[in-house]
Amino acid sequence: MDNLVAVIMAGGKGERFWPRSRGLYPKQLLPITGRRTMIQETAKRMNPLISSDDIFVVAGEELAGGIGEQLPELRRGNLILEPFGKNTAAAIGLAAIVIEKINKKAIMVVLAADHLIGEKRKFLRTISMATKAAKEGKLVTLGIQPTRPETGYGYIESGKKLQISGVRKEAEIYAVKRFVEKPDEAGAKKYLQSGKYFWNSGMFIWKVESILGAIEEHMPELHRGLKKISAARGVSHKKEVIKKVYKKLENISIDYGIVEKSKNIAVVKADFHWDDVGSWLSMERIHKKNKDGNIIQGKFVGIDTSQCILIGKEQLIATVGVSGLIVVTTPQAVLICSRDRAQDVKKIVGKLADDGLKKYL
Amino acid sequence: MDNLVAVIMAGGKGERFWPRSRGLYPKQLLPITGRRTMIQETAKRMNPLISSDDIFVVAGEELAGGIGEQLPELRRGNLILEPFGKNTAAAIGLAAIVIEKINKKAIMVVLAADHLIGEKRKFLRTISMATKAAKEGKLVTLGIQPTRPETGYGYIESGKKLQISGVRKEAEIYAVKRFVEKPDEAGAKKYLQSGKYFWNSGMFIWKVESILGAIEEHMPELHRGLKKISAARGVSHKKEVIKKVYKKLENISIDYGIVEKSKNIAVVKADFHWDDVGSWLSMERIHKKNKDGNIIQGKFVGIDTSQCILIGKEQLIATVGVSGLIVVTTPQAVLICSRDRAQDVKKIVGKLADDGLKKYL
Repeated sequence: MDNLVAVIMAGGKGERFWPRSRGLYPKQLLPITGRRTMIQETAKRMNPLISSDDIFVVAGEELAGGIGEQLPELRRGNLILEPFGKNTAAAIGLAAIVIEKINKKAIMVVLAADHLIGEKRKFLRTISMATKAAKEGKLVTLGIQPTRPETGYGYIESGKKLQISGVRKEAEIYAVKRFVEKPDEAGAKKYLQSGKYFWNSGMFIWKVESILGAIEEHMPELHRGLKKISAARGVSHKKEVIKKVYKKLENISIDYGIVEKSKNIAVVKADFHWDDVGSWLSMERIHKKNKDGNIIQGKFVGIDTSQCILIGKEQLIATVGVSGLIVVTTPQAVLICSRDRAQDVKKIVGKLADDGLKKYL
Repeated sequence: MDNLVAVIMAGGKGERFWPRSRGLYPKQLLPITGRRTMIQETAKRMNPLISSDDIFVVAGEELAGGIGEQLPELRRGNLILEPFGKNTAAAIGLAAIVIEKINKKAIMVVLAADHLIGEKRKFLRTISMATKAAKEGKLVTLGIQPTRPETGYGYIESGKKLQISGVRKEAEIYAVKRFVEKPDEAGAKKYLQSGKYFWNSGMFIWKVESILGAIEEHMPELHRGLKKISAARGVSHKKEVIKKVYKKLENISIDYGIVEKSKNIAVVKADFHWDDVGSWLSMERIHKKNKDGNIIQGKFVGIDTSQCILIGKEQLIATVGVSGLIVVTTPQAVLICSRDRAQDVKKIVGKLADDGLKKYL
């Protein structure tokens, strides 16, 4: 489609997916959800709508090798490398100025490299619809229709329905009333029932011009930094300037920094299957359980084992009399985690760094 | 000591110690309790009393290589190989006829290759005492003074005290009233309190002549088989005869087949620290727990982890929010077992064979 470019945000560390997710091969570079790696799935998904020439990836420098291997069709100049992670506001801003130089009229489809999207056609239809709202100058976010009272996601409360030219009347595009932090269970149930709340997917569609304008308005410091980077000439000089600018940037998400402050937001209701693949627990939503409620990958033998997520490969996993465990093996490490503590796998990563066990990261 | 020989029974499969214990390297050939392997510890323990020339080992043919590696001082002829396991009655009978040919007056000290004995001096003193009773023609068994209401061991009820010549009066050598199967918890508590019950250690001291006599009396079939083996000439012919005889032998323990039927039994009270190292759970008795009640070998990082037995080596073990688990890793397999199911690790071994996963055995 004219002017449409994809920006795949691949800066995540995937710490909750340790020990599979490692420093140089984090979650998005792993085949967590299927045969292809998550970033490969993400790029391939855009294919019918956006040619590979118009796919951009933003990631930390250390991932350049892995991404290059996995996306051989990615243009060298389309891999936008950050000297260190400064959250999504900076990453999207950096992508915007790179893309602006190529095409001032570009419309960015900002995607996470590590989300699962189940129904590709519905997804592409939603993106097309969102693009039309973006063309009218809106900052468009995709709001996923909730299917359960999830407490792990932020929510978007929709306001009045918007009528966008060229979009059929039944299409649901709304103004945004407010963004809501991750709720407790009662809150999540209320949101689910009301029908007015969507999951905040972190996927955005907007004109380069719109987002740079919004950055200028709400994050003038970032805007000044981006202008400096944009003005820098020569590859190595530019690299140096990026580093200098990045050092001083605020570590803030695009949600907090821009989207939640802007009055010009629209939310497009997305009804495709979506999952942020946030922890090993999401394997239960992605893969089919066996009759004992277990998710099993790799060789396994078990006695009285139920409600477990068992991710092996080279090694056989054998269990006796256990329930509700997450077990993940790699040749270097084995994780055994209670299923209600899946979020805390991140803490193990922190502890490994503290304990001088960095070689396992 | 004159005529004293040690017979180390090394035929066990150690299935409860899977995945560390494997077909060619079962428990007794592993360093479960210390730096040396269990069979090395067992042989070394006898050293001051019995020279290595007088140490015999009985094991399956498949273990010849491993035992040869680990006990280089063992005489080649002293390694008595069985074509297949037929339990302890056959193994001890076979050892007896081999030893009889070397020394008709020999006194056999029958030991398991995979027990933990904590106080070597007390142990050797007990053996010396038992030897004196054996010289009088008794079949002597070592009864361990119970220290807890253990339901995993068989018990021996002692009868009247015996006076053996050359043994100081305080020494406790008793006639045997009866052998008792593994009790329930109430039974075990009663036995512990009574002071009359000992743990049946499976260690015996007797003259070759006495045990062969008892075999003739209580297991005439076995005795006939042993005579055939004894009469066979030439190494390969003997091997063939052993195989033929073994095929027809009853699979029965020396306890059931002989000791419990004989009227000529004495039990020597043994007050050294002893453990049969029966399952991974025994690691808790052998090794020191950390402040969270965990036994840890190898690299480990944990969050909210307690009462676990974690046996790693090459691989890091990482745990989050788990309690009461046994985790054992090898490069081929990882075991996760509830601590109250330590006995059932054996079932995993059975399942592996059934499921065509023999390469993990």
